[in-house]
Amino acid sequence: MELFINTYQQMRKRLKAYGYAMWVLSWDLETETPEGAIDYRSEQIEVLTNEIYALETNKQYLRAIEVLYERRNQLDDLLKREIIKVEKEMRLIKKMPKDEYIDFQVLLNKSTTIWANARKNDDFESFLPTLEKIIAYVRKVSKYLQTPELKGYDVLLDMYEEGMTTKEYDAFFDQLRTELVPFVLTATSGKKTLSRKLTKNHFPADKQKEFNEYLTKVFAYDMRHAVLKTSAHPFTSGFSSTDVRITTRYIEEAIESAVFSTIHEMGHAIYEQQVDPKLNETRLNGGASMGIHESQSRMYENMIGRSYAFWEVHFDELKRIFSKELKGVTLLDFYQYINRAERSLIRTEADELTYPLHIMVRYEIEKQLISGKLKAKDLPKRWRKLYQEYVGVRPKSDSEGVLQDIHWAGGSFGYFPTYALGSAYAAQIYYAMNKDFNIENAISDNQISKINEWLKQKIHIYGQTKTPKELIMLATKEPFSSKYYIEYLKRKFSN
Amino acid sequence: MELFINTYQQMRKRLKAYGYAMWVLSWDLETETPEGAIDYRSEQIEVLTNEIYALETNKQYLRAIEVLYERRNQLDDLLKREIIKVEKEMRLIKKMPKDEYIDFQVLLNKSTTIWANARKNDDFESFLPTLEKIIAYVRKVSKYLQTPELKGYDVLLDMYEEGMTTKEYDAFFDQLRTELVPFVLTATSGKKTLSRKLTKNHFPADKQKEFNEYLTKVFAYDMRHAVLKTSAHPFTSGFSSTDVRITTRYIEEAIESAVFSTIHEMGHAIYEQQVDPKLNETRLNGGASMGIHESQSRMYENMIGRSYAFWEVHFDELKRIFSKELKGVTLLDFYQYINRAERSLIRTEADELTYPLHIMVRYEIEKQLISGKLKAKDLPKRWRKLYQEYVGVRPKSDSEGVLQDIHWAGGSFGYFPTYALGSAYAAQIYYAMNKDFNIENAISDNQISKINEWLKQKIHIYGQTKTPKELIMLATKEPFSSKYYIEYLKRKFSN
Repeated sequence: MELFINTYQQMRKRLKAYGYAMWVLSWDLETETPEGAIDYRSEQIEVLTNEIYALETNKQYLRAIEVLYERRNQLDDLLKREIIKVEKEMRLIKKMPKDEYIDFQVLLNKSTTIWANARKNDDFESFLPTLEKIIAYVRKVSKYLQTPELKGYDVLLDMYEEGMTTKEYDAFFDQLRTELVPFVLTATSGKKTLSRKLTKNHFPADKQKEFNEYLTKVFAYDMRHAVLKTSAHPFTSGFSSTDVRITTRYIEEAIESAVFSTIHEMGHAIYEQQVDPKLNETRLNGGASMGIHESQSRMYENMIGRSYAFWEVHFDELKRIFSKELKGVTLLDFYQYINRAERSLIRTEADELTYPLHIMVRYEIEKQLISGKLKAKDLPKRWRKLYQEYVGVRPKSDSEGVLQDIHWAGGSFGYFPTYALGSAYAAQIYYAMNKDFNIENAISDNQISKINEWLKQKIHIYGQTKTPKELIMLATKEPFSSKYYIEYLKRKFSN
Repeated sequence: MELFINTYQQMRKRLKAYGYAMWVLSWDLETETPEGAIDYRSEQIEVLTNEIYALETNKQYLRAIEVLYERRNQLDDLLKREIIKVEKEMRLIKKMPKDEYIDFQVLLNKSTTIWANARKNDDFESFLPTLEKIIAYVRKVSKYLQTPELKGYDVLLDMYEEGMTTKEYDAFFDQLRTELVPFVLTATSGKKTLSRKLTKNHFPADKQKEFNEYLTKVFAYDMRHAVLKTSAHPFTSGFSSTDVRITTRYIEEAIESAVFSTIHEMGHAIYEQQVDPKLNETRLNGGASMGIHESQSRMYENMIGRSYAFWEVHFDELKRIFSKELKGVTLLDFYQYINRAERSLIRTEADELTYPLHIMVRYEIEKQLISGKLKAKDLPKRWRKLYQEYVGVRPKSDSEGVLQDIHWAGGSFGYFPTYALGSAYAAQIYYAMNKDFNIENAISDNQISKINEWLKQKIHIYGQTKTPKELIMLATKEPFSSKYYIEYLKRKFSN
C-alpha cells in the first residue's frame, strides 16, 4: 500500500511540474506569443504533450491508481477523494484505444481553426464534416465511460458537473421555460431610453485601466498572487492558490465591458486564491466544478457588481476618472444602463436576464445531438427555431447563430448547462449568506472582503474535496433549488 | 551511424521542447510572475530541472554524441559543427561527478540571493564565503575541461568566446591600457555644461513608450516575431528566430535610458531574428558568441544610435513627443548630452568611452583569481586600486565597487572580457561595412534596414555555424584587430 501511495505521489509531483509548464505556456500564448512564432511553438507543444502522455500512461502509475482505487476505503479522506477523481479522469485513457485517443486529440487541435474560419466566412457547411466527426467521437467517449447509472449525455454532463444528469437539468430548464420565458418576452418587449452619454461615447482605455485597478482594491483581489493583463477575450487562469491571473479587454465604446469582465474574472480568481493552500500539491486544488466556479463569478459580477448598493459607493470614483465623459450622467442612469435587458443573438454579450435562455437552446440541442435525434446538418434550422421560441429573436446568419461559440469545436458537450446552473447556484448561495449578515450593508460599507471571507469558509477553502452537491448543502443547508434564481430575476427585472 | 544520428536527433528534439518551456518560464519569471508565487514556482522548476538532467545524461544519448564525435569527419558540415559544440558542452556533465555537479548548481541557485543581500547591505564579508566556494568550483571546472592547449583561465575564456585566450586578450587590453587610459583620463578631466532641461527634468513613461515604439519601426525590428515589454533590468530573450523578445525600463528622470537600452536590445534581437530559420531545429541557432552578440548590440546602440546622423533624422520626433519637456533644447545639446564621457563607478551606467576600462579591471582580477595569485578576501582592496588607476575614481563602498555585478555570484568567470571585445568587433565590422556602402547616408535616409541586411548576410544568417574568428574574417576580410576601436573612440571623443 505504502509503495503504491509513494509511486502515485512521486508521479503526481512530476505531472504537477509539467502541468505548471503547460499552464505558463498557455498563458504566454494567450497574452504574449507573437503571431510569427505560433507554428514553432506548436511543434514544441506537441513534443511536450507526448512527454506528458507517456507519464500519464506509465504502467506503474496506472497500476498504482488502480490498486489505490480498489482499496480506497483504507485511505485517508483526502487521498481517497483524490484517487476517486483521478481514477475517473484516467478511465478514458485506459479504455479508449491509443490510436483513437490520439486521432481525437489531433482532430480537436485542428477543429478550432476550421470553426474560426467557418464563423468568419459564415459558412456552416465548411465546418459540418468536422463537427460530425467530433460528435461521433464524443458519443464514443460517452460509451467508453458509461456505467450502469450513467449513459449517453449524462456521462458528459457529469464530467463537467459531478452528479448532475438530464433528470436534474430537465427539471431546472423546465422551470425556466415555464416561469422565465414568458416573463422575459414581456420584460424585453418595450423600448428603453438610455443616456446617450453612456451608449454613444468614447471611454479611453487608460482611464478604464485606472478604474479597473481601483476595482481590484475594492474586491480585495490579492495582487501578491495575481496578474491583471489584457487579452482578446477575458479569462481567468490559475495554477495553485499562489498564482491566479486574469485578463480583461478595454472596449473604448463601452464603459461597462471591462468593468464587468474584470469583476467576473475576479470572482473566479478570488475563489481559486482562497482554496486551502495545503491542496496545492494534490489534484484537489482549484474550483469544485464548472457550475460552482461560475456561481462565484456571476455572483460577483451580477449580484454584487450590478447592484444599486455597489454603485452608490463607487459611482463617484467612476465619475472622477471619467469626469468629462460622464458629465450629467446620474447614478440612476448608470444603474439602468448596466441592467438593461434585451433580446439578443450573442450569448457572451447577453444580459443577466436573457442569458439562461441562450443556454437552454444549447442544452436542448446537445441532448438531441448526443442521443442521435438531431443530425448535425439540421443544426442551423433548429437553432433559429429555438432562438425564436425562447429568446424571441431569429439570427440572420450562422455566424451570429450556431457558429458563435467555440465549445463544440473543442469537443465540449455538456459544458454549456453549467453556465445557467452557476447563476442559479449563485442566487441560492447569496440567499443563504444574506441570512448570516446583510450583504447590501457590507457592500454599502465597502466591505466586500466580508463576502470573500464568508465564501472562503463555506465554499472556497474546500477546493475539490467536496462534490458540488455537498458544497451547496454545506453552504446553504438545503439541496439545490432553482426557486431563488427565478425569484431573484423576477424581483430585479420587474421594475 | 544512422542509428546514432537518429538517437541524437530524437533527443535533441525533446530537449528543444523542454528548453522552450524553460525559456518561457524564465521570461514569465522576469516579467510577470507575482511575488507570492515564487516559492511554489521554484518547486516546479526544480522538478523540471531534474527531468532535463535525466535526459541530458541519458546513456544512449551520451553514447551517440561520443560516437558521432569520434566519427565527426564523416558527418555533413552542419552536423559536424553541432556535434563538436555539443560534445564540448557535455564534457562537464560527463567529467564532473554528479554529486559535485549538483552541489555546484545548488550553490549557484542560492548565491545570487546572498550576493544581492550583500550588495544591498554593503557587506562584502557576508558574500565572501560563498564567493570562495564558487571560485573553488570554477577552478575545478577548468581542471575538468582542460586540454593540452587550454588550461586555467583560458578554459573559461574559451567557453564564452571560442578561440579567445589570455594571449589574445592580454594583447587587446595592453593596447587599451597604453592607448586609451591616458586619453580617457584627459578627456574626462574637464567639466561639461549640459542643458538642465536634459539633466534635471521629468519625462513621463507613456511618452517614452511612444518614442520606443517609434524606434522599433526605425530599426525595422520585426514585431511579428517579437515582444517589447518592461522589466527591472532590460534584456533580450530569444528561442529560435521566430520569437525574440526584449524588455526595457522607463526611468522618468532620464530621457535617454530607455531609448538606448531599447536600441541595444534590438541589436541583440535583430541578430537572433535574422539567423537562418533552418537552424532552429539544431543547436546552432542563436548568436555565435557573447562577443559577437555584444558587437551587434553596441554597434546599434553606440555607433548608430548615438551618432549625429541618427538624431538629425529622429530628433524632431523626440521633440514632437516631448514638446513641453524639450522646449528650447537643440540637436547639439542633445547630442552632447547622450555622448558625455565621465569617470564613473558603475559599469552598467558607464559611457561608451570609459566602458572598456571598467572591463579591464574585471579581466585582470579574474585572471589573478583563477590563477590563485589573488585571494577573494583581498578583492575589495584590489578593486579600488585598479579603479583608481584605470578609471580615475575610487569607490567608497563595496556596493558600488566589487559587489556591483551579478556575474561572479552566478559562477560566470571569463564572461566580462567579451563585453569590451564586442565593442572592438563592432568598430572593425562597421569599418568593413562602410567600405560596401556609406553607413551615415543610410542612417540619414532612414534606411537602417540596409544595415540590418548587410549584417544578416555577413554575420547573422550563420548563427553558430562559424566560430567568432571565422565570422570576423568573413565579414571584415582580416583577423581581429583593436586598432579600429581605438581609432573610433579617439576620433569621436576628441571634440
